[in-house]
Amino acid sequence: MQDENEFENNAEDILENKIEHAYELIENKDFQKLKELLAELEPADIAMMLEEVPIEKVPLIFRILPKELAADTFVEMDSDQQEVLIRAFSDEELEQVMRDVFVDDTVDIIEEMPANVVRRILKSISPERRAKINDIMHYPEDSAGSIMTIEYVDLTESMTVADAFDKIRETGLNKETIYTCYVIDGNRKLKGLVTVMTLLTSPQEAVIADIMDENVIFTTTDADKEDVSKLIEKYDLLAIPVVDLEHRLVGIVTVDDAIDVIQEEAEEDFAKMNAITPMEKPYLKTSVFNIWKSRIPWLMLMMVSATFTGMIISSFESALAKVVILTSFIPMLMDTGGNSGSQASVTIIRGLSLGEIEFSDILRVIWKEARVSILCGISLAVATFLKIMLINNLLLHENVDWTVALVVCITMALTIVIAKFIGCTLPLLAKKIGFDPAVMASPFITTIVDAVSLLIYFSVATSILPGI
Amino acid sequence: MQDENEFENNAEDILENKIEHAYELIENKDFQKLKELLAELEPADIAMMLEEVPIEKVPLIFRILPKELAADTFVEMDSDQQEVLIRAFSDEELEQVMRDVFVDDTVDIIEEMPANVVRRILKSISPERRAKINDIMHYPEDSAGSIMTIEYVDLTESMTVADAFDKIRETGLNKETIYTCYVIDGNRKLKGLVTVMTLLTSPQEAVIADIMDENVIFTTTDADKEDVSKLIEKYDLLAIPVVDLEHRLVGIVTVDDAIDVIQEEAEEDFAKMNAITPMEKPYLKTSVFNIWKSRIPWLMLMMVSATFTGMIISSFESALAKVVILTSFIPMLMDTGGNSGSQASVTIIRGLSLGEIEFSDILRVIWKEARVSILCGISLAVATFLKIMLINNLLLHENVDWTVALVVCITMALTIVIAKFIGCTLPLLAKKIGFDPAVMASPFITTIVDAVSLLIYFSVATSILPGI
Repeated sequence: MQDENEFENNAEDILENKIEHAYELIENKDFQKLKELLAELEPADIAMMLEEVPIEKVPLIFRILPKELAADTFVEMDSDQQEVLIRAFSDEELEQVMRDVFVDDTVDIIEEMPANVVRRILKSISPERRAKINDIMHYPEDSAGSIMTIEYVDLTESMTVADAFDKIRETGLNKETIYTCYVIDGNRKLKGLVTVMTLLTSPQEAVIADIMDENVIFTTTDADKEDVSKLIEKYDLLAIPVVDLEHRLVGIVTVDDAIDVIQEEAEEDFAKMNAITPMEKPYLKTSVFNIWKSRIPWLMLMMVSATFTGMIISSFESALAKVVILTSFIPMLMDTGGNSGSQASVTIIRGLSLGEIEFSDILRVIWKEARVSILCGISLAVATFLKIMLINNLLLHENVDWTVALVVCITMALTIVIAKFIGCTLPLLAKKIGFDPAVMASPFITTIVDAVSLLIYFSVATSILPGI
Repeated sequence: MQDENEFENNAEDILENKIEHAYELIENKDFQKLKELLAELEPADIAMMLEEVPIEKVPLIFRILPKELAADTFVEMDSDQQEVLIRAFSDEELEQVMRDVFVDDTVDIIEEMPANVVRRILKSISPERRAKINDIMHYPEDSAGSIMTIEYVDLTESMTVADAFDKIRETGLNKETIYTCYVIDGNRKLKGLVTVMTLLTSPQEAVIADIMDENVIFTTTDADKEDVSKLIEKYDLLAIPVVDLEHRLVGIVTVDDAIDVIQEEAEEDFAKMNAITPMEKPYLKTSVFNIWKSRIPWLMLMMVSATFTGMIISSFESALAKVVILTSFIPMLMDTGGNSGSQASVTIIRGLSLGEIEFSDILRVIWKEARVSILCGISLAVATFLKIMLINNLLLHENVDWTVALVVCITMALTIVIAKFIGCTLPLLAKKIGFDPAVMASPFITTIVDAVSLLIYFSVATSILPGI
């Protein structure tokens, strides 16, 4: 069925074949052919391939990579493998690899290594670069400063286009991006930017000051990295300049790092909203103990906080004993309530994360949710009544009294309205007092909504049903 | 406290001031100054500003924008405003704006417009572009073809570096990116790529065939846009070429579109996992009716499926009537079970989305979750026992019998193990049979886990407690 054309067109198959072939060459110790093959692969793919190779063979294979590919591959590897390699490297080899690694990537590597490995890395780096690494490591976690790269092309206003091209040619290969160049004055203050596109379409003798764009979108070293990524996304930038408090250019954040931040923040929200402490490594690489550690505190919290729901049920024991059928609707009421609440909270939490909703929108949000919840409440109450009459009574012959059905339906409607109110306000309030809204989503809202729905249930039951 | 320096450093404040100023100028009808001010703003900011301007004034303000800024701003506006503008435009104005809009953006606009507006747009576009738009609109939704841009720089192997620069200068301004140029042969087959960086560091007379990179990471028109974005992310690309079945270059997908896809897919997962049908517009712009529509089906499904849990409780009515305290632990068992299940399912669903986990990992996943769930189960069972003895008995004097406590703890441990098993396998099975794993997360897993936890509870109770 598979013709050659279709095969050739599938980039993934080609890659898989190459990697399979690489494994064979390693098996047969054909390092000459392996070297040729690896040169065709991307750093990320070589790193992926090396994960499946016995750890003791990794340094051997790594050594046959061309110098620059080696450094790029090193950056893509996971920290366990990096550590093995660093331990296997001679001082000279380490020096050579680290020379080609960008400062921001070096910082990432250092942060994952044990102290003795860090000492060896720092020893292998020039004092000048060491100072720069130190600077970046001192920026607060999650700040623009901590993720910026310091390899960019800077120009001055008096340069000509020809000068600019000379500078790009001379230093460009060691810069993370050359396509946007930043214009600074004698004090390194950011004056403007000029793209290579502009340079290419300007005469060679034009002066940078005349062609540069002075409306630069920039950020500061202490800005939240999430906000920085949002700027890059909003304005479709390839990189954004980072300035210090004196408006001096100190680095840039590139679009690939912004994608990582966006991805990372979304994953953190996914974890927190579902009662998991965010983990650093992918699931399959995280130890059982660490997964347990990331999950158990929330389950414990949930278990203890369920004391309230237990107390509510206990105090209505006699009512439940009299009208036993009431118990059978508890799961439905709790689940629908919990779900209604989480529908609202997730919408608001993501809106906050994406910057679409702010605390000042709280009244608009409440008004919107109020209308949605009344619509949802009425439609579900009606549906529940029909369901009880058709499924529970006609089909299952449970003979639920219509007054009990009424109690269930009224509770359903009220629970939904309150659940959505809690679900939409709690994240906004959390944000306001400086808490992470995402943490509010699961255990807190569930516990509160559970308790509220039971209280409503029993209040409605005692006031409508005769004799309890 | 706020000195001038700090103020100047805050890009957000500067922007807000400019926008405030713009509103004043609109109010005072000072269009000359407004024109100057708008020229300093980014298209995304002008679009944001126009959202707060009375709709009837928008066409007036739009007309004072410089031609290219107008087109860029138009693309950034939301579809309601675009529609108002198109209706206000003369045929000539519409033609002028559409001329500067990229084909992929035109497709996005057309997809949101009512039929009569679409007809006007298509009439304003040259037949040649219209054919291209038609092509893109025929690619399946969510395919690379549907989001690709057809404005890229293509070179041939026999060109020199000087020729390449000439072509970039000549056509570059109308291309979405010029920094990666694609090399094609006479049949438009993709042969390689060359970056502007390489062009800049090569001699003017060098031939493209000699300097191009033949190991091109590419994708096909029918590839899933999510996979395409993953490639861009993995290899840190600025753009990826898209080829048809004959390996002919037909377009490129750029990194800014990839970010949008990544963001969009994450939001879809957030919605689905929390029983919401994904919505197209931001929350505050979505109508109450549409929000209701996106939430009610799942709540209904949940309500109906709770029939099972109700049935289980009904059939154990007599047991519950005898040991009434059993009822008070139902919420705790159900919530902890539901949470344990969702912890596992969210982890697996995101792993699948990110490509970190595949169906073939199912045994590894089950083995990992088995160990995690046994750890969680034992620790929670012990904690529950202590909690019942300390809080329920010592503090609240509920006098829970130790045999009842035992029933609760055994149920807790078993529920967690089974919930995590269901939570980790369901999404993988869903993926295998072509369902969306994210939809499995909330209503399905909750309903199943609820039913299972109740069944375990009553089975354990009837076998341990005397007389029920």
